[in-house]
Amino acid sequence: MPKRILRVNMTNLEAKFEDLPEDYAALGGRGMTSTIVAKEVLPTCNPLGIHNKLVLAPGIVTGTKAPSSGRISVGGKSPLTGGIKEANAGTPFSQMLARLRIGAIIVEGKHAGDDYYLLKLTNEGTEFINANKWSNKGLYGVYKDLRKEFGDKVGICGVGIAAELLGGNSGVCFSDPEGLPSRYSGRGGMGAVMASKGLKFIIVNDTGAPGVEIANEEIFSQGIKKLRDALTSHDVTKPGGALNSYGTSVLVNIINEAGGLPQRNFSAGQDDRSEKVSGEAKAEEIKKRGGQRPHFCNPGCIIQCSEVWCKPGGKDPVGVLEYESVWALGPNSGIYNLDDIGELNRACNDLGLDTIEAGDTIAVAMEGGLIEFGDGKGALKLMDEIRRKTPTGKILANGTEITGKVLGVTRIPTVKGQSLPAYDPRAIKGIGVTYATTPMGADHTAGYCIAPEIMGVGGQVDPLSPEKAEVSRNLQLATAAVDATGYCLFIAFAVLDIPEGLQGVVESLNGVLGTNLTVDDVAPIGRSIIDTELEFNKKAGFTPIHDRLPEFFLEEKLPPHNTVFDVPDSDLDSVF
Amino acid sequence: MPKRILRVNMTNLEAKFEDLPEDYAALGGRGMTSTIVAKEVLPTCNPLGIHNKLVLAPGIVTGTKAPSSGRISVGGKSPLTGGIKEANAGTPFSQMLARLRIGAIIVEGKHAGDDYYLLKLTNEGTEFINANKWSNKGLYGVYKDLRKEFGDKVGICGVGIAAELLGGNSGVCFSDPEGLPSRYSGRGGMGAVMASKGLKFIIVNDTGAPGVEIANEEIFSQGIKKLRDALTSHDVTKPGGALNSYGTSVLVNIINEAGGLPQRNFSAGQDDRSEKVSGEAKAEEIKKRGGQRPHFCNPGCIIQCSEVWCKPGGKDPVGVLEYESVWALGPNSGIYNLDDIGELNRACNDLGLDTIEAGDTIAVAMEGGLIEFGDGKGALKLMDEIRRKTPTGKILANGTEITGKVLGVTRIPTVKGQSLPAYDPRAIKGIGVTYATTPMGADHTAGYCIAPEIMGVGGQVDPLSPEKAEVSRNLQLATAAVDATGYCLFIAFAVLDIPEGLQGVVESLNGVLGTNLTVDDVAPIGRSIIDTELEFNKKAGFTPIHDRLPEFFLEEKLPPHNTVFDVPDSDLDSVF
Repeated sequence: MPKRILRVNMTNLEAKFEDLPEDYAALGGRGMTSTIVAKEVLPTCNPLGIHNKLVLAPGIVTGTKAPSSGRISVGGKSPLTGGIKEANAGTPFSQMLARLRIGAIIVEGKHAGDDYYLLKLTNEGTEFINANKWSNKGLYGVYKDLRKEFGDKVGICGVGIAAELLGGNSGVCFSDPEGLPSRYSGRGGMGAVMASKGLKFIIVNDTGAPGVEIANEEIFSQGIKKLRDALTSHDVTKPGGALNSYGTSVLVNIINEAGGLPQRNFSAGQDDRSEKVSGEAKAEEIKKRGGQRPHFCNPGCIIQCSEVWCKPGGKDPVGVLEYESVWALGPNSGIYNLDDIGELNRACNDLGLDTIEAGDTIAVAMEGGLIEFGDGKGALKLMDEIRRKTPTGKILANGTEITGKVLGVTRIPTVKGQSLPAYDPRAIKGIGVTYATTPMGADHTAGYCIAPEIMGVGGQVDPLSPEKAEVSRNLQLATAAVDATGYCLFIAFAVLDIPEGLQGVVESLNGVLGTNLTVDDVAPIGRSIIDTELEFNKKAGFTPIHDRLPEFFLEEKLPPHNTVFDVPDSDLDSVF
Repeated sequence: MPKRILRVNMTNLEAKFEDLPEDYAALGGRGMTSTIVAKEVLPTCNPLGIHNKLVLAPGIVTGTKAPSSGRISVGGKSPLTGGIKEANAGTPFSQMLARLRIGAIIVEGKHAGDDYYLLKLTNEGTEFINANKWSNKGLYGVYKDLRKEFGDKVGICGVGIAAELLGGNSGVCFSDPEGLPSRYSGRGGMGAVMASKGLKFIIVNDTGAPGVEIANEEIFSQGIKKLRDALTSHDVTKPGGALNSYGTSVLVNIINEAGGLPQRNFSAGQDDRSEKVSGEAKAEEIKKRGGQRPHFCNPGCIIQCSEVWCKPGGKDPVGVLEYESVWALGPNSGIYNLDDIGELNRACNDLGLDTIEAGDTIAVAMEGGLIEFGDGKGALKLMDEIRRKTPTGKILANGTEITGKVLGVTRIPTVKGQSLPAYDPRAIKGIGVTYATTPMGADHTAGYCIAPEIMGVGGQVDPLSPEKAEVSRNLQLATAAVDATGYCLFIAFAVLDIPEGLQGVVESLNGVLGTNLTVDDVAPIGRSIIDTELEFNKKAGFTPIHDRLPEFFLEEKLPPHNTVFDVPDSDLDSVF
């Protein structure tokens, strides 16, 4: 069986398999979604109208034995940014798609009326099932029910109440290995795109699947061994290393120390109380209350940065509390209490919200006077407004920029309509260049300058220096390439420092694809993907003027460094 | 005393007179505001931040005996569109400014804290007065109080509760000759710009003012005589003519007949019930209930299209119910009841809302399920949400596009964030070209193709023909020039058909300015203003992609003609 595209037409509830076009053969993940979106979606279309499409694609090596490679990319035109979007997550769902030899699912059309549907996908074929009974409910309960109905082995992709509201902050939610709704392609409102079409869930079961075709097993095995060696030896990625021990939250203390952990809607870069919500404090607490740490988001991951946060006694498991989530729902909202943050994160997962956008939205709502900074219980009540679909809830479900506008807030931390993640660009300037220039809207994962600026990975540069155009560009190109492979971006920590690891990555790709790529091909592959995305955005009406940070980052000094974002516009324009 | 600029710095509450720069000497109205905004305002600035400015300018002949010339232009960067904005109104306020020889008021800076101020302006100078006691209140009561405090002779400029919310739908409100808060520079949220600076009111009294300097009285008198003759002889503008008898609402029946009167959020172009809210029906009702018809918005107007709508017995005078207001708050919301429309219009004036934006917002809120189409009492309750500054009120005060997004509506009738006026572009295509291409966002006054398409004024073209680029361009150029003169745009009905009238207009300008303009200079003057505006918008990030109507106008057929907007993009791009 060759690799296929599954084309899902929601207008008439048809799902058809198509041969993967030859020129898509070497694509995967973000490379696949951005290519299809650029080819099939009118850049000027209404993101929630009939002409937008939702594309899901596993990476090139996803579904194989390659370590840490269970990523899925979700693409389309974003209702939040108005530009092209790719948001990826780690989930067994992606591995199952890949083993069914599905290169991409393209969801198109729009079902008339108010019914929601579930698409069931197995080795035998597809089936549409009315999903109304699983709508207007929290996803923790729904995902449990879906596993009861369809079995524990299924992978689940779904959207929540925020997407039913067509909220600009609504993610596409994937199940983790235990079936928790905790792995999110969260950013950019792709959940609303899926819901706008009438599609609520995709359930996949790969029983009997042929598995991923590997052109050259020898090269492939050799490649993944080199990568595995790199991952298990680098301090950041190895078992017992930083990510494995504390998860991404290991950054709380580090970024706070660096003066770049935004507090109270980006009004300071440091607060001693941040330590209370650090990765170290959290790991200890997880142990105490019977959660799980480490944990993997997809089988075969070596890094295992994930965890299962829960209430004392192991109750109400949430899944991982990522660094960015802890920050957004914590310090950036003036909240320094892991219990509140855990509940807020659970609410986000339950409602189908991106945690970064939700936390920034809460902070802006606090600045707009809806509740006080630091009011964790008040923030939970705001989440409940979304659950009850009240007018306030509908505002919040639309994310930071609209919430700020509605509440008359002028300090709105967004680029291209998408809210800034957990690193203040006045204290760590390279990441600010990435926020400003990536086609995705403010996104730290698009070119993670924190690696060289703070962690000393892939070189070491001064975070306060404004000369960051090249650093950001190089990382953005590498990232786009990695996002196409299906590998977790975190392998980059190891392969940026260990050349054999990078060589292994390339060999693993050659093994699967039967190609002769070299390490020198990585950046051009990334460039080609980003060029496709930039071209889409240009046709959608974006100009260099949109590659800018909000005014207040250029004018308000951030304590403790008391610096502003001073990267010249010409440097920003030079990135691409 | 030479003509001056009054520069008002709200940061430190300073108001200083400056000499009018020589190269501004021949500017007025929109020519003055757009020139100053382009020169002094950073196109990428936050419209509600410290770098935006609010510019008010009377026209070139405003304050003289020239008939129908009491217009004022309000300019700045629009928080609704993100582009340059000019919105003009007819009001004695403008005539008083002109007689004080003030070419422009430039409001800049931003007062720290929550206090609001009133700026008092007389021939003796300026004074700032704390205005908190006149805040958070309806403008009908406040304008009455201000006249008690400052005398019946003052002209008032102010902003209401919607502006206090920094709503994208908040106009700058001027007093009519009776002091009613009914003359609005409504479009584009310029009220929020004024409020963002801490400025709530400007009170002007021209007692002892030197009056407008006229370089050549003879030419001037000759010019205004020719114009007066044209106005008093053309069927549209003459006493007892269409506008004088029925006001702008004379169009209700005409546009409904033409199939271009949008019903229920632009879902049909005709409805028999529209007749109930026609200009004819309204004129009769005004007579019955003891209102006033005709009426002038500024002394010296010949056309006198205005009126005073009120409750039976002459109670609660509202002011004029313009055609576009009646449409927006009426048929477009499924409301066919003049009492409800009158109350809604009163609420808009009282709260400081643009009626077109408010009506489109109500209709979109109806489509979004907040209330039912046709529910006039429900719509009034929505207005009350704004008055009480509730979350729902804050949504609505931000206008049509944000309301649509928050409520998950995909049929949002806006261009550049500003809602479409009272003519469906699928049935009357030239006006659609104007909506799409004017730098102002959807604005019928920017190039009123209804004149040749429906009224047979300035030629006669088929409204359903898509070949309208040239018609719209020519009218947009002429309009920009008229908007600079201080003349009401309605003089165009006469001077488009009567060449001597146009000659008179030009002579009146030469009389005031001492220039030697000819009729051939009119279009180039307009072009120069529009080029300035387009250049600003380009620097603010606008591209041809933004010169488009929303998707549904291109795809949903409008009954009764069952046509779509089919002007090719290349034609839209050819306009400028």
